[in-house]
Amino acid sequence: MMAGTPLFDRITIIGAGLIGSSVARAVRRGKLAGHLALADANEEVIKEAEGLGIADSFHTSVVEAVAGSGLVILAVPVGAMASVGVAMAPGLAEGAIISDVGSVKESVFGALEPLLPAHAHLIPGHPVAGTEQSGPAAGFASLFDGRWCILTPPEGVDADALETLTAFWQGLGSTVEIMEARHHDLVLAITSHVPHLIAYNIVGTASDLEEVTRSEVIKYSAGGFRDFTRIAASDPTMWRDVFLNNKDAVLEMLGRFSEDLTALQRAIRWGDGDALFDLFTRTREIRRRIIDAGQDDAKADFGRPHED
Amino acid sequence: MMAGTPLFDRITIIGAGLIGSSVARAVRRGKLAGHLALADANEEVIKEAEGLGIADSFHTSVVEAVAGSGLVILAVPVGAMASVGVAMAPGLAEGAIISDVGSVKESVFGALEPLLPAHAHLIPGHPVAGTEQSGPAAGFASLFDGRWCILTPPEGVDADALETLTAFWQGLGSTVEIMEARHHDLVLAITSHVPHLIAYNIVGTASDLEEVTRSEVIKYSAGGFRDFTRIAASDPTMWRDVFLNNKDAVLEMLGRFSEDLTALQRAIRWGDGDALFDLFTRTREIRRRIIDAGQDDAKADFGRPHED
Repeated sequence: MMAGTPLFDRITIIGAGLIGSSVARAVRRGKLAGHLALADANEEVIKEAEGLGIADSFHTSVVEAVAGSGLVILAVPVGAMASVGVAMAPGLAEGAIISDVGSVKESVFGALEPLLPAHAHLIPGHPVAGTEQSGPAAGFASLFDGRWCILTPPEGVDADALETLTAFWQGLGSTVEIMEARHHDLVLAITSHVPHLIAYNIVGTASDLEEVTRSEVIKYSAGGFRDFTRIAASDPTMWRDVFLNNKDAVLEMLGRFSEDLTALQRAIRWGDGDALFDLFTRTREIRRRIIDAGQDDAKADFGRPHED
Repeated sequence: MMAGTPLFDRITIIGAGLIGSSVARAVRRGKLAGHLALADANEEVIKEAEGLGIADSFHTSVVEAVAGSGLVILAVPVGAMASVGVAMAPGLAEGAIISDVGSVKESVFGALEPLLPAHAHLIPGHPVAGTEQSGPAAGFASLFDGRWCILTPPEGVDADALETLTAFWQGLGSTVEIMEARHHDLVLAITSHVPHLIAYNIVGTASDLEEVTRSEVIKYSAGGFRDFTRIAASDPTMWRDVFLNNKDAVLEMLGRFSEDLTALQRAIRWGDGDALFDLFTRTREIRRRIIDAGQDDAKADFGRPHED
């Protein structure tokens, strides 16, 4: 694109939560839109976003919000994609690119594809970024900087549309990767969905104990548990929809996790210290590679504040 | 104690790793010892500690290091307590307080108690603090600030010795809690040991997949997985010993965790979104309480660096 010319005359973001509001802020930072329209069905949420001044126009009606937009980004829970698709379809501009930020890709494509006019270009996407917080105020412009954004274009995708959407995410700070939707769902099942599930699960287990009080669990959480509570504080609606919409891959990875955990349990019961030591040594190496790849900070304890 | 008078004429710390070296630094910061002796059986480690200048004398012989010390803190893996006990016993000063920093308390008492002279006061302890890093250079003086230190004195403990050890940990910045050893082991099983085990386990599961490459796991780890790799980078020897020495409590808590996970798995399989949503809402509340209790930072994503 030419310097000074925004990538799109008008962009619409639907959903003003953590991700939608971060996309909005990053669009502005990158000057990617002549006009940025932000929509949310929840009046309180869109008012909050308006108060933050993170877009040029604010809407509760999606069909009104999408009118004239060359790009529409759906930043709503995966389970809400279909109803948004139905609502916005009549208002879509000729040749508009429709994308999303959902954590599951095969089901999003399946839900939206039959609802959209033939002239629209549906290219699902997933920026692998986020925090445990929710709502318009939790967003920030640099959320996608240096993070991966995975696009899962269907077969026969329009090459120009894919190129433009790629440029859009690069303009937001991301590095774009193209992947098959099915493979995306399998990769994310292990790197994101199952980790969230077991974090939710252990926090639930801990809060149900009779012999250990809840205040003890909270007091002594610095031993490791508190890391899990951060993940288990993530948006309940978003995550419910992820599990319901990526059932097969999650169940497959969960089966493997449980099988491996049973083997570890057996090693503990029978005092097989070598088996434990070998695993614990192997996993340390994975952490090193994540830090080397720039996917996390090398600072101890996530750089939590410590003097000295 | 009077201002200007150190709590002990001489303190010995055995083990110069993350925790031992942090205790050493905090002892100096608090001016708690007239002389601070630091010992480690590993010559390289003790040389590194000496290079850092974090104590007054440096030893590879524990019997030499403990001579004349009113307080001896064992900062070695739980499985090494007995051999350190045997080695140091002949050198212990009359009425010395012997404590430790191990993550398991019943087995540490059982291992040390028969080895120590009758005049020594054995009071096991556990500062609930740490990072995933290891070695003398990883330690820092503020590690225990505002963190809990749990002491598990045996029945009939000498009241003066307990009071002095309590003042010692307060001098290191901690808040001291007294607990029965068995109960400590149960509480820590859920707040620390099982969280570590499942973190090690999922990192192991992820690194063994055929359909998802290891480089994909690393690239997309920002979705949640990377938090687990931090915990799974913790010291392998220390953690092997924790699981072998807190077998009953870990197996009990692991059984509950697996039972709950099976129920979640069933909810996913049968599309029971309400069950998922209810749990995910409940767990968010636990996070809020941990932040309110000052046990973690309220900043999103553990305050990982983000501009904006």
